[in-house]
Amino acid sequence: MAEASVAPHVLHVPSVIARKRDGLTLSDADIREFIGRYGRGELPDEQMSALAMAVYFKGLDDRETATWTEAMLRSGEVMDVRHLGRPVVDKHSTGGVGDKVSLVLAPIAAACGLTVPMVSGRGLGHTGGTIDKLEAIPGFSADLSADSFERVLREVGCAIIGATKSIAPADKRLYALRDVTGTVASIPLIVASIMSKKLAEGLDALVLDVKVGRAAFMPTLAAARELARRMIAVGERMGVRTSAILTRMEEPLGHMIGNACEVEESLACLEGSGPAELVALCLEQAATMVARGHRIDLDEARARARDALDSGRARGVFGRMITAQGGNLKDLPKPRGESVLRAPADGYVSAIDGLRIAQTLVKMGAGRQVASDTIDPRIGVRLEALRGDNVCPGAPLATVFHGDKDPQPEHLAALAAAFTLSDSAPAHEPLILERA
Amino acid sequence: MAEASVAPHVLHVPSVIARKRDGLTLSDADIREFIGRYGRGELPDEQMSALAMAVYFKGLDDRETATWTEAMLRSGEVMDVRHLGRPVVDKHSTGGVGDKVSLVLAPIAAACGLTVPMVSGRGLGHTGGTIDKLEAIPGFSADLSADSFERVLREVGCAIIGATKSIAPADKRLYALRDVTGTVASIPLIVASIMSKKLAEGLDALVLDVKVGRAAFMPTLAAARELARRMIAVGERMGVRTSAILTRMEEPLGHMIGNACEVEESLACLEGSGPAELVALCLEQAATMVARGHRIDLDEARARARDALDSGRARGVFGRMITAQGGNLKDLPKPRGESVLRAPADGYVSAIDGLRIAQTLVKMGAGRQVASDTIDPRIGVRLEALRGDNVCPGAPLATVFHGDKDPQPEHLAALAAAFTLSDSAPAHEPLILERA
Repeated sequence: MAEASVAPHVLHVPSVIARKRDGLTLSDADIREFIGRYGRGELPDEQMSALAMAVYFKGLDDRETATWTEAMLRSGEVMDVRHLGRPVVDKHSTGGVGDKVSLVLAPIAAACGLTVPMVSGRGLGHTGGTIDKLEAIPGFSADLSADSFERVLREVGCAIIGATKSIAPADKRLYALRDVTGTVASIPLIVASIMSKKLAEGLDALVLDVKVGRAAFMPTLAAARELARRMIAVGERMGVRTSAILTRMEEPLGHMIGNACEVEESLACLEGSGPAELVALCLEQAATMVARGHRIDLDEARARARDALDSGRARGVFGRMITAQGGNLKDLPKPRGESVLRAPADGYVSAIDGLRIAQTLVKMGAGRQVASDTIDPRIGVRLEALRGDNVCPGAPLATVFHGDKDPQPEHLAALAAAFTLSDSAPAHEPLILERA
Repeated sequence: MAEASVAPHVLHVPSVIARKRDGLTLSDADIREFIGRYGRGELPDEQMSALAMAVYFKGLDDRETATWTEAMLRSGEVMDVRHLGRPVVDKHSTGGVGDKVSLVLAPIAAACGLTVPMVSGRGLGHTGGTIDKLEAIPGFSADLSADSFERVLREVGCAIIGATKSIAPADKRLYALRDVTGTVASIPLIVASIMSKKLAEGLDALVLDVKVGRAAFMPTLAAARELARRMIAVGERMGVRTSAILTRMEEPLGHMIGNACEVEESLACLEGSGPAELVALCLEQAATMVARGHRIDLDEARARARDALDSGRARGVFGRMITAQGGNLKDLPKPRGESVLRAPADGYVSAIDGLRIAQTLVKMGAGRQVASDTIDPRIGVRLEALRGDNVCPGAPLATVFHGDKDPQPEHLAALAAAFTLSDSAPAHEPLILERA
């Protein structure tokens, strides 16, 4: 029998860059070889950054984006925990202020019979990282071996670990490159970066929380819709049932912003005493995971998620996950002191600038300005007044939790200035904008 | 007296790239620091290639292009031979087939009282390099020290050397980068590259020969006009009197294409027996140099250039320059054999595809496909029939000069196929299209 004659694919790198520069589409073979070589360190950064800038201007269509995503995913290890016998589902949020949803939702989803192998990030800039929050718990380790990760998933149903070097190394290299070459704000490159890392978890289904607003990555509903549509297209092309929920991100999510205090608020949610709107969002996202994971009706999934929470089963899962990952919830660090910010006049709280609060907290030491910064987990803020509340002069707006050092006056002033007071009550704005 | 307080300029590289990406103009300080750092090797290629791609899409205005040019020029040494007491003038051609104008014009201009410190390139691809032609002369050295270069300029008036590492190193690095990142075809980057090297010669005036046509870099008159306009704008902003002549480049220039044979044709021009149209172009460009250099009327300059040629003074300058640079014109290498290409039918020569001839000669060994190729100076072509000539079957179209190896049949066929015969005489097309 004659062997099939397959001409080897020879990549002429400048021609591929020029094709994209001229607005043409790239072949799957070109993209696979370009990204593959880049991930193996065989293609220099200057060619990748030129291509990234050409993509910034000319885009990638859904087919190109899916191929690009898959090539980045295949540059590293792909997990597979489907042999555990439960649908494998995860959630990704595009990043918000006070967003502790993962901590509440993963246990709910696991309590509903899903495997949730969550690989999450550390925070940089104003969006807090889920791993940073969990690392406020003494003893907690986000750095599990593949065997330990699988053991926790088998025994508990969910586990949350930090990104490892073996997941999508081409994305890791490209992400760092985009940061220094003005090519971050490209929708297809954002999609490919998010999806390559998430889909490397070997998922059956994925739920995306796409944040919209000034404190979010996507400032407008139109941009967020486009990002959601494209992430769904890539997920579905790669055989993963993908849904998105667009949520408002102007004020912080919940009442707590910080690391240790957000773990406390997550516990409160799991114990039935969390802020209603935050709990509702956790339940809706968990229900979407359950619906897509088990292929059941959304209303049925909502009932199961609600029951997992109300029965305390989700709280139990959370406790077992923290214990299995070495953490001790009893020893959560407490603030060394507190300052109360008070209303200077009477009025309605018409806006709370989540971005400003988050940026100030980063400067105070609750987050990172550069990747090498260390975090003080005790620093944080509890909102005492929420959007729509009517306050009188001297009424508390927020409590500031101190870390090792007391906050500087300009930081307290910046936090207070995040609250806008006005004469009339603001119109109610729903947290969940739409489902995609 | 208080010292002026000048805040140091701190460059945030990704922000500069993003500004250009977003279509904004860059400040002079940003451009100077970006290019300066790049030239010193303090800024990585991936940031430069991203900026180059952003410039490809968003352009540079005349002010930005001039600043970019000056920054590249200042990344290296800038010559200054004005103390020799004569106006310092040069010519640059955007590159054509059979273009030996520099060899004829530099002696004419020097004989008219100008200093012509010509730094020229080696050829790559289909456009021949002036240095390659001169290096066909046994003993000729294009590699003079700064002192020797100045001595020849003082004693002879003109000298032609190869580009040195110390001239515009930022351009050298960027030129190589653009070649591998799909960012060659950007008019402002082309302008900055050409002008940074030419203006590093410390010129009072510069004449540009912008080629238009299929065998040229600029295929259309509109594109050539834009390139000319922008080079003039940069030159004038940098205080150099700059003129451009747009010339047709479809057929080869003159009758000879090759290295040794183009030196022979240059000598013929200087000795009064060159092709009329080629001689006219050399005189017109030389006259423009003389007019701008001495700030005299163009007609007066034309008369001086004509006299320098007709009197034999230009021929004398050429001989002294070659001798001063070590060359011996008596020993020009001769072809090892010749082949004659003949007309297959009768008809008018309606087109001669200069690009095809040049590309074939490169394959035969008369030029370089990659920079490390060596050249056989004997290989070349003499046109025996010109555009507009009426030929009968078997009449010679061209003579092919052989080098070490005899030409392959497919190369001879390709050369013959460069001639188009048709039933009627083609309309005359002038060589000089317009002055800018």
